[in-house]
Amino acid sequence: MERSKLECVKCGRDFPLELVNARCRDCDEPLEVRYDLDSVPRDWFKTARQGAFFEKYAPFYSYLKTNPALSLGEGGTSLVRSNRIGEQIGIKDLLFKNETQNPTWTFKDRGTVLSLQNAFSLGYRRIGTLSSGNMGASVAALGSRAGMDTFILLKGNVPREKIDALAVYGARAIQVSGNYGDVYNKTPEIGKLFNIYFSISDEPMRVEGYKSLAFEICEQMRWEPPDYVALPVGSGGLCRGVLKGFEELHAVGLVDTVPRFIGVQTEGCSPTVDAYEKGIDRIERFVNPATLDHVLENPYPPSGNQVIRKMRTNRGVLLKVSNEEILDAELLLATEGIFAQPASATALAGVIRCVEKGLVPPDARVVTVVTGSGLKYPPVLKELDLPSKSTSVEGLADTLGTLIE
Amino acid sequence: MERSKLECVKCGRDFPLELVNARCRDCDEPLEVRYDLDSVPRDWFKTARQGAFFEKYAPFYSYLKTNPALSLGEGGTSLVRSNRIGEQIGIKDLLFKNETQNPTWTFKDRGTVLSLQNAFSLGYRRIGTLSSGNMGASVAALGSRAGMDTFILLKGNVPREKIDALAVYGARAIQVSGNYGDVYNKTPEIGKLFNIYFSISDEPMRVEGYKSLAFEICEQMRWEPPDYVALPVGSGGLCRGVLKGFEELHAVGLVDTVPRFIGVQTEGCSPTVDAYEKGIDRIERFVNPATLDHVLENPYPPSGNQVIRKMRTNRGVLLKVSNEEILDAELLLATEGIFAQPASATALAGVIRCVEKGLVPPDARVVTVVTGSGLKYPPVLKELDLPSKSTSVEGLADTLGTLIE
Repeated sequence: MERSKLECVKCGRDFPLELVNARCRDCDEPLEVRYDLDSVPRDWFKTARQGAFFEKYAPFYSYLKTNPALSLGEGGTSLVRSNRIGEQIGIKDLLFKNETQNPTWTFKDRGTVLSLQNAFSLGYRRIGTLSSGNMGASVAALGSRAGMDTFILLKGNVPREKIDALAVYGARAIQVSGNYGDVYNKTPEIGKLFNIYFSISDEPMRVEGYKSLAFEICEQMRWEPPDYVALPVGSGGLCRGVLKGFEELHAVGLVDTVPRFIGVQTEGCSPTVDAYEKGIDRIERFVNPATLDHVLENPYPPSGNQVIRKMRTNRGVLLKVSNEEILDAELLLATEGIFAQPASATALAGVIRCVEKGLVPPDARVVTVVTGSGLKYPPVLKELDLPSKSTSVEGLADTLGTLIE
Repeated sequence: MERSKLECVKCGRDFPLELVNARCRDCDEPLEVRYDLDSVPRDWFKTARQGAFFEKYAPFYSYLKTNPALSLGEGGTSLVRSNRIGEQIGIKDLLFKNETQNPTWTFKDRGTVLSLQNAFSLGYRRIGTLSSGNMGASVAALGSRAGMDTFILLKGNVPREKIDALAVYGARAIQVSGNYGDVYNKTPEIGKLFNIYFSISDEPMRVEGYKSLAFEICEQMRWEPPDYVALPVGSGGLCRGVLKGFEELHAVGLVDTVPRFIGVQTEGCSPTVDAYEKGIDRIERFVNPATLDHVLENPYPPSGNQVIRKMRTNRGVLLKVSNEEILDAELLLATEGIFAQPASATALAGVIRCVEKGLVPPDARVVTVVTGSGLKYPPVLKELDLPSKSTSVEGLADTLGTLIE
């Protein structure tokens, strides 16, 4: 039986599973969990299961001591089949994995809860992250629920609403002025000094949490995985995690194929796509990023190089789309009842582009991951100048009459 | 076998199940679905079930032809056990039913999807509602998904953000100036004129959708229902629906008891509580309502009289709480990771008041329904002036040091 461990995603060097706040010393690349996949029973999924995803899919988290009291019910989100968009854009079967149904309304909760389980079982009582958005809110919520002292480091210029959305949970919001990359590089030292477990984007347990998206998609599709999975690529953690999930299912023989991935960035910040297209192995820092949704704004993503390596072996597509395409996709998605944040809509915009370019065939089964709720970014709607009518009680019938003709 | 029908909640008069946009002609009270409960198999819940709640709990919706393609995956929300709040406020077991995990992030989706199923099966291709908030967003999302022409009637003075939150789905937003009660009274006529199915707060199918909350709570508690269920009371539809669900489970012998209900209003708009306390049967219009969260602002709730009747037989508690208590409860709830809108926090505020008054004993098992996401009402946070810190990269360790001691 293989011992559970962390492993550098590039050089394959081993590190102990208990190591936190670290990357590979030699490669400066993220670490990833390796454990005994032989222990996964082949018929595990036939047994009825309940509870949090890490209980439901326990064999894939066998290396971790978990405590359900720390969970808020992450995952278990809907897989919704498109009624019209698939047909409209020219593919047979399009499905949306609606991650806005998580406890803080984004996929981040899956990663956060697993970081938290690990932190707690290692004896940490302080948790932190570096995020001005969804990851910050997620760590704030779950950290507070666990009774941990919770620290969220934010950019210096972050607007008041974003601070409130974390501080409401009782987490300590700390705005740090200066270079964000410098703050990131400082987290191992700060973590050690104050015994804070930092659950940042490339943290191994965070990636492990995102695996559960693959498990749920396969279960919801009766163990016939889709041909393609489309998702937005920011830091790269989501892409790594979901792909690892499919690869583990494949390794233990639960599914016959691993879907091809469609990773999408915005033209306003596309370091991973640019490096992939240039055929180089190391991403270059994206200069002057300008995005609709700061979730997409990661000019030097910590998992970027690994995403490039994985997408090459996956024969995946990495592409970028314009703001206009993103907003069009956001409105299109809403016509099927899912109001997503712009970052989520990039995935659908990417699928549309792939179909147009003939990269995805019309008979493909495509799952698009809707990463977070549109309620988090309402200002975007203002720019769209959406239509409405005004009338009086007496004029209502006439107004409806003109709309219905 | 009893024929499925609608029945006046007050006089018991029968109406055909196919009747829409109507109340009892004689009593001006809402209608409610009656169907053959004898057809519910006693062991139905032992069979593994998947899918939307109306499929999972199909025997309780046997009167309705449903189409899963119209669903966005409503319900199936988490029941989260309190880690600390229960102990803090002095009760043994406190649980939160987190309805913010619905497709449009409030409980309304359960009712909307059932209205939609009924509308669709009756041949309607137009749906509408009267709401400036959660119900409007829910009908806009699900109506659009179903490919229906969707009309949302709003108050004349509603802010732009609320219009955008509906219009994004492609629904027609129509601001109607004048008295809101007059618009409500006009919906039957308008509905008939334009073949619009109005899914308003006391619509029988909406109440039927809310039943599923009771089913899920009981299943999640292994068929041992809680002693109390606490929820906010606005129009009264939620309270009626959840109570009907427990009563149906009890009627078919799936549970031994029906929980007592704790219905909570805000002091700024408490018509139902006031009538209940006065011992009168008909609510009086609340003059000059002033609330934190317009969800709570229903000065003449259409299901108010029925809530009073039901709460009397249920031996339930109807009480009101202050804005201060609501905000305190909102922040308290957030310390367990659930950021709710103020309306949702009224329920917890009500539980706290009941414990203080000795109305709920310390060994009680209480489920509080968290009706909707706090993201819908971020302005409330501004008033709280939540704490945050500012520092530089160099000063970060010192700042953390002062926070940690």
